[in-house]
Amino acid sequence: MMCLVAALSFSFTQRADAQPLQLASPEHVLEVSFTLEDGVPKYSLSRLGQTLILPSKLGFKLAGAPDFDTNFELLGHQSSTFDETWEQVWGEKRFIRNHYNELRVQLQQRDALARRIDVVFRVYDDGFGFRYEFPEQPNLSEILIDDELTEFTLTGNHESWWIGAYQWNRFEYLTENTPLAAVDTVHTPLTMRTADDIYLSFHEAALTNYSSMTLERVADFTLKANLMPWADGIRVRTQAPAVTPWRTLQVADRPGDLITSYLILNLNEPNQIEDTSWIEPAKYVGIWWEMHLDKSTWEPGPRHGATTENAKRYIDFAAEHGFDHVLVEGWNPGWEGDWFADGVVFDFTRPYDVFDLEGVAAYALERGVRLMGHHETSASVEHYEAQMEEAFALYERLGVRAVKTGYVGHGQEIFWTDADGNRNYEWHHGQHMVEHHQTVVELAAQHQISLNVHEGVKDTGLRRTWPNLMTREVARGQEYNAWGENGGNPPNHVLMLPFTRNLAGPFDYTPGVVDLLFEEWRPDNRVPHTLAKELALYVVIYSPLQMAADLPQNYENAPLPLQFIKDVPADWYDTLVPDGSIGNFITVVRKDRNSDEWFLGSITNEQGRLLETPLSFLDEGRRYRAEIYRDATDAHWEHNPYALEYVEMEVSSTTILPLRLAAGGGMAVRFVPLDE
Amino acid sequence: MMCLVAALSFSFTQRADAQPLQLASPEHVLEVSFTLEDGVPKYSLSRLGQTLILPSKLGFKLAGAPDFDTNFELLGHQSSTFDETWEQVWGEKRFIRNHYNELRVQLQQRDALARRIDVVFRVYDDGFGFRYEFPEQPNLSEILIDDELTEFTLTGNHESWWIGAYQWNRFEYLTENTPLAAVDTVHTPLTMRTADDIYLSFHEAALTNYSSMTLERVADFTLKANLMPWADGIRVRTQAPAVTPWRTLQVADRPGDLITSYLILNLNEPNQIEDTSWIEPAKYVGIWWEMHLDKSTWEPGPRHGATTENAKRYIDFAAEHGFDHVLVEGWNPGWEGDWFADGVVFDFTRPYDVFDLEGVAAYALERGVRLMGHHETSASVEHYEAQMEEAFALYERLGVRAVKTGYVGHGQEIFWTDADGNRNYEWHHGQHMVEHHQTVVELAAQHQISLNVHEGVKDTGLRRTWPNLMTREVARGQEYNAWGENGGNPPNHVLMLPFTRNLAGPFDYTPGVVDLLFEEWRPDNRVPHTLAKELALYVVIYSPLQMAADLPQNYENAPLPLQFIKDVPADWYDTLVPDGSIGNFITVVRKDRNSDEWFLGSITNEQGRLLETPLSFLDEGRRYRAEIYRDATDAHWEHNPYALEYVEMEVSSTTILPLRLAAGGGMAVRFVPLDE
Repeated sequence: MMCLVAALSFSFTQRADAQPLQLASPEHVLEVSFTLEDGVPKYSLSRLGQTLILPSKLGFKLAGAPDFDTNFELLGHQSSTFDETWEQVWGEKRFIRNHYNELRVQLQQRDALARRIDVVFRVYDDGFGFRYEFPEQPNLSEILIDDELTEFTLTGNHESWWIGAYQWNRFEYLTENTPLAAVDTVHTPLTMRTADDIYLSFHEAALTNYSSMTLERVADFTLKANLMPWADGIRVRTQAPAVTPWRTLQVADRPGDLITSYLILNLNEPNQIEDTSWIEPAKYVGIWWEMHLDKSTWEPGPRHGATTENAKRYIDFAAEHGFDHVLVEGWNPGWEGDWFADGVVFDFTRPYDVFDLEGVAAYALERGVRLMGHHETSASVEHYEAQMEEAFALYERLGVRAVKTGYVGHGQEIFWTDADGNRNYEWHHGQHMVEHHQTVVELAAQHQISLNVHEGVKDTGLRRTWPNLMTREVARGQEYNAWGENGGNPPNHVLMLPFTRNLAGPFDYTPGVVDLLFEEWRPDNRVPHTLAKELALYVVIYSPLQMAADLPQNYENAPLPLQFIKDVPADWYDTLVPDGSIGNFITVVRKDRNSDEWFLGSITNEQGRLLETPLSFLDEGRRYRAEIYRDATDAHWEHNPYALEYVEMEVSSTTILPLRLAAGGGMAVRFVPLDE
Repeated sequence: MMCLVAALSFSFTQRADAQPLQLASPEHVLEVSFTLEDGVPKYSLSRLGQTLILPSKLGFKLAGAPDFDTNFELLGHQSSTFDETWEQVWGEKRFIRNHYNELRVQLQQRDALARRIDVVFRVYDDGFGFRYEFPEQPNLSEILIDDELTEFTLTGNHESWWIGAYQWNRFEYLTENTPLAAVDTVHTPLTMRTADDIYLSFHEAALTNYSSMTLERVADFTLKANLMPWADGIRVRTQAPAVTPWRTLQVADRPGDLITSYLILNLNEPNQIEDTSWIEPAKYVGIWWEMHLDKSTWEPGPRHGATTENAKRYIDFAAEHGFDHVLVEGWNPGWEGDWFADGVVFDFTRPYDVFDLEGVAAYALERGVRLMGHHETSASVEHYEAQMEEAFALYERLGVRAVKTGYVGHGQEIFWTDADGNRNYEWHHGQHMVEHHQTVVELAAQHQISLNVHEGVKDTGLRRTWPNLMTREVARGQEYNAWGENGGNPPNHVLMLPFTRNLAGPFDYTPGVVDLLFEEWRPDNRVPHTLAKELALYVVIYSPLQMAADLPQNYENAPLPLQFIKDVPADWYDTLVPDGSIGNFITVVRKDRNSDEWFLGSITNEQGRLLETPLSFLDEGRRYRAEIYRDATDAHWEHNPYALEYVEMEVSSTTILPLRLAAGGGMAVRFVPLDE
């Protein structure tokens, strides 16, 4: 199945030592150009002959060392082509083609230190990435990056979708939609639409031992890398030889093509875990939403959620309906009191008395279900690191295969204690935490445990290398609908996510709330969708660990939506995005990895729509039963959200399926081959 | 094939005499609401529960009569439903469903005059229309409309595409793209995109004896009807009983759905011509482009284009390559001198000496070709009307089946002479000319002649009623590429037209220029497309009379593009628009009316694109040969416009066809069933 073609013939055109160095993508779609102007390295990018990125700076400012962005000469350059199709252990697509042309530019400064750096460009048809490589060299050993000077100079005031960086609540914000000129300093993925209706998304890949890159607008249409600093202001501490993460740009004609681009994964290293048999996409339920509804509590007391009895009730429900894991939050000491104020509180290896951890775990296994572990660190990383080896060993022994970690705490609340006993406060997305998360994922792998990381660092595709790093939150999820101010997430929030946050990777949004209004618990809040839209989220928002968030009793009262939640898989053979408009609507189609079934999810914002999708993805000549969960004619997210209709239709690859989405509505479809 | 269902059961909900009166479209997509607030009639419109048009005024100001927009009471109201599928004599789609619910509101003023007016709403799933009807009544007989007070109050500052009204050059302008707040007074169709990505197009239907409606922004987001006035300031002169044209709004989720909406045609009266056998969609060549290139002239002289010899050369070319008509311009006296300054110059019944009209017409018939007649009026309508009966009779006798008319002259240059011999100057799109054009089309029908009207009034769907009114210009066409300032039409012009001008009806854009740079004749001008894009225009821009505009010798030198121009039909069984973005790109698919062949045209603006189209429109299980005319990999409208590639592929309804469009490029495809 693997197909590796490394050849020397490629589309590289350049006269020896001449400038610019130019390299096109395999199908001549994108072309990168590198120049040295008076010793200053710059790159630019064009697509089908039109400029996308104007000449933009490269380089660094290093602490205690001369400038490292000028006075360079070209030492050499090499180019190569690469074409491989690799298989994901799990994912939104099973086989991914990794086809690029690479240009390595070797630079050396024209002074006595003769310091060297390489810039490596990989040019794909659907985007490009570049990184810096610091070779081993006599005059550059310890590297303290004061500033990364990488710039991206755009050609116009593109419409942009973003969330701000340097905020107390990390990544948990609603998406802003403004012209580029209104962008300040923002997280990636940063998504744009040009006036010509071309879509761009800036991000990074393979962030393992560096600071997260945010993007700061430093001139009209120029963005510059702004690395999250350490407490002392240094942006990155490293040692040559070293490589940076890839700075990436995806380019697409239709917004949905950003979603089916696998550039970020392709720029990560191949899987490092030999035996992956224990890594399993799964659906889970758990003791979680009831706390957000304030029906029960994390902390001990009369409404303590994590009791043995309650856990067994969830296990029974999971066993009956085929869910794989049961998450239990609030099971371990530390929740009493103001647990996230200082936070050195949690015990990760001992349950509360009311929760018989060993007994519950055994009961789960007996019923064919597994516990999903939970490690809330309250952002006290030192405190967690001291216990985590033992904590993962405990879970492994109990048959737990997935752990949800949490890092609740303000943006810059992580601390480490130095030799003098002083606490140094770090950002959630600085190098300190990037390295912590890397430690955790490797440790978890040793214990055959997969991770579901909440309040962590943004995804940069590491799941390719460490497929036990399955999913994460790192965005504003479902729980804001339970208690968020101003009504929680507005109806268009989930229309932003697929084109922004989800471009980074899987998102544990926790869909599946069927008691949309929860008037008994929080009458002033609600889920701002129709029921059909909430179901469609299972197809639209990709996660290999996919929660059915609502309470068992609510599902028992809603057998129709529950049926779809039971039927929809969490692992896919392929993904298509036939249609979409950022913040407005999206239609996603996915094929089950373990059968010939297909699924479709289509959702809209406050505006109802009449769309249609040709079912050309179905096998030619085959008949399918379409099981359609759709908004009734009079459904409306605000006035009539429960108006869900179920209909069956016989369809084939030539059917054009009409999609009628109510205001704030959606449609979920399962396609079952009739010859099975 | 016709299916007429008139029933009394429909979705009309209202308590007797209560307000508002509400009526939904057949599938409950749109809903119109009518209210009388203190005697002032207003309507509003919602779609799937969301407001599209806020309460907006209705009514008139009449000259020499009391106000006619207030003091009304509800005399009665009726509603009905209508569902019919009718057949076009020719068109972009053969069978059109006309399915609407109608609400008739009968109003009477609460004063001694007790004047009456009806407002009739027709609500479709893809738009709505309403018109006023003045019943016969004692106190309102002669009607002089001082102002039509109809308003459209929108919900936001929608992105808008428009051309200004009251301009000297009539409709021949590039499309402006601004927020609604930058709109002043504009022609229709006026197209919009809401922030939620919903598409609107305002226009009117069945304009036969009224003034053209332009739209004037009178408040932030409120547009008001602004009727083109007569010379004396009166907007419309009519007599009860009378009906106004339909004021229309099309609403779509995708911009392409505006194009496949047949609202405008449905709101016109059925075909009035019994024997339509002489009305024939056709492709034509002609002595025309060579004058725009300044290779020859309209007026007599050494380079006079309309010579017998030249006409025969075109006839030979047409006969050899299967073109139906040969247009000859400059054939009749009047072109010498400054013919459009005053303009009472043309002789419509006598040729120049160098042009043997009778001989050429006979030669054409002999070779299986027909002359296309030409009547340039220089906007001297009185002068034309005096001759036109004889002129049409002449053409009929010579076997001519189609006449191109022209009204070159400034916007307000039309005159009529009153009893005192004074000239009253009228606008090209005022009631005077609307009625002139109606006279011409009825006269032409008597002579079995079809019309191709240039510099006329905008299309409002009259081709349904008078199918000999086949096509018109009334927009900025190809000739601007020959001599227009600032390079003529920019590459995005033809990406605007399908979503604006073409929503009104067929457009004689005159595509097919294959000598794109015409360096020999006008080296400072050019066609700003690749060759593949120029071919794709035959599918994208609909006209039942479709010109192959270039010179025979240029086609002889370009057999590959000529082949597509020969193969593409000018009459269609069906039309689909799988994808598009206003001003940016569009893909149109049409099925030949007279065979099982399909055609695809896809074009882009200055930005190259990688798109794809599922071929789900092809018959299931059937194989087709796709004859693909596409941009070569290195094509670019500016640098490499002639880089056209021809490839053949075998495809089926499950094929996803990739479309690679160069900057300013396109793709044209013919699909031929392989079992034929």
